[in-house]
Amino acid sequence: MARRKKIYEGKAKILYEGPEPGTLVQYFKDDATAFNAEKRATVDGKGVLNNRLSEFFMTGLNTIGVPTHFIKRINMREQLIRSVEIIPLEVIVRNVAAGSMAKRLGLEEGAPLPRPIVEFSYKEDSLGDPLVPEEYIIAFGWASQQDLDDMVALALRVNDFLSGVMYGVGIKLVDFKIEIGRIYDGDFMRLVVADEISPDSCRLWDIKTGQKLDKDVFRRDLGNLTDAYTEVARRLGVLPTNVTHTTKPTLIN
Amino acid sequence: MARRKKIYEGKAKILYEGPEPGTLVQYFKDDATAFNAEKRATVDGKGVLNNRLSEFFMTGLNTIGVPTHFIKRINMREQLIRSVEIIPLEVIVRNVAAGSMAKRLGLEEGAPLPRPIVEFSYKEDSLGDPLVPEEYIIAFGWASQQDLDDMVALALRVNDFLSGVMYGVGIKLVDFKIEIGRIYDGDFMRLVVADEISPDSCRLWDIKTGQKLDKDVFRRDLGNLTDAYTEVARRLGVLPTNVTHTTKPTLIN
Repeated sequence: MARRKKIYEGKAKILYEGPEPGTLVQYFKDDATAFNAEKRATVDGKGVLNNRLSEFFMTGLNTIGVPTHFIKRINMREQLIRSVEIIPLEVIVRNVAAGSMAKRLGLEEGAPLPRPIVEFSYKEDSLGDPLVPEEYIIAFGWASQQDLDDMVALALRVNDFLSGVMYGVGIKLVDFKIEIGRIYDGDFMRLVVADEISPDSCRLWDIKTGQKLDKDVFRRDLGNLTDAYTEVARRLGVLPTNVTHTTKPTLIN
Repeated sequence: MARRKKIYEGKAKILYEGPEPGTLVQYFKDDATAFNAEKRATVDGKGVLNNRLSEFFMTGLNTIGVPTHFIKRINMREQLIRSVEIIPLEVIVRNVAAGSMAKRLGLEEGAPLPRPIVEFSYKEDSLGDPLVPEEYIIAFGWASQQDLDDMVALALRVNDFLSGVMYGVGIKLVDFKIEIGRIYDGDFMRLVVADEISPDSCRLWDIKTGQKLDKDVFRRDLGNLTDAYTEVARRLGVLPTNVTHTTKPTLIN
């Protein structure tokens, strides 16, 4: 039995070669980082929860016809995904002012926005994933105008759906970040939602109490991160039977 | 104290004059009808549940920027709404074949569709609300091409959001019907979701068991309708404290 080939290791996930061409195995670590990895910790069970939650959200998006990279969950920490050509942008949708936007514009966190706002950051850790205008994206060739228009439409559909998922269980979807990739099929290309959707990549506030149920709990030392993510999973009925159970990356012969 | 003026009485709701110009009071009855009112019954508590559920869905749509006629719930059976010019069409969005589409096309109920399908019925009880192609709608002047395009976009946003709300609590949104109205503000006109959104106007199947949680329970004699609607309200955390409590239309002096 040979260990699978590691393709890429990021802050919260590892990508391994998949069992079939065009597939990858995405492994969810317990590592939490914030402020471009200046703050780090290991959070027991986070990887297990995010694997489940990302499965749940991606599967939901697939059911409404929003294509994603997700194929199936393999085990507590791994999922099989399609290999995609990642567009080097973080696509952020904001429903309420928070985080970097609140800071940049001097807005209070929680301030309403005139409408959902889609923005892009250039994915480059060494630069701190800087916010970029569409003009940069097209000029530097990271995506075409058509891609950008399609990405905005895709991101807004994800926003409508995820806002609904959260609203139904008493949570406000404040903002979220997705990555989008290209999949080629002969001469055809289509855009799919990639990476992960989890409380690591969303801001989630309890509608009644305002309690934060996302990575801000870690960023701002507001309590136990696993408890917050567990609450989200519990409300959505996707709580793993044993959250703190840890597995090593699966060995496949 | 004078009883409010009744504007219109439908099969499941009554509209009264509202307290302010441009408003109406929408009263939810316990009457259930099916097959163009050939089948009728009184279902204790249905009106109370639908009042709550429609409030919940419309409020959610308002939060994501989909405009609706809903202003606020007044009591167990009544809500304050904006008076709109109803477009005489039922706008139906289908995610899975069921009901009249399954029958018309000889499809099995539950058969997947290539994508969500938006269709229109002409609202006319005496004709049984017949399905109509867009060509009819434009030719007979019920809506302009621009209105129709906007209605499709609006209906698809409602579909993405409601699919999410339901998915988060383990329910498949099979299809639903909305009505859309025009509101005028000076020279401006905008389209808003009107009427109601409730298990009377949706098909809702439990994702795990396939159990029907909508008006088909009544149409097809599958059990107790109040139990089905109560289950939907319970999962969404909007169960009224006393479902079977009945009130008469409020008297406002």
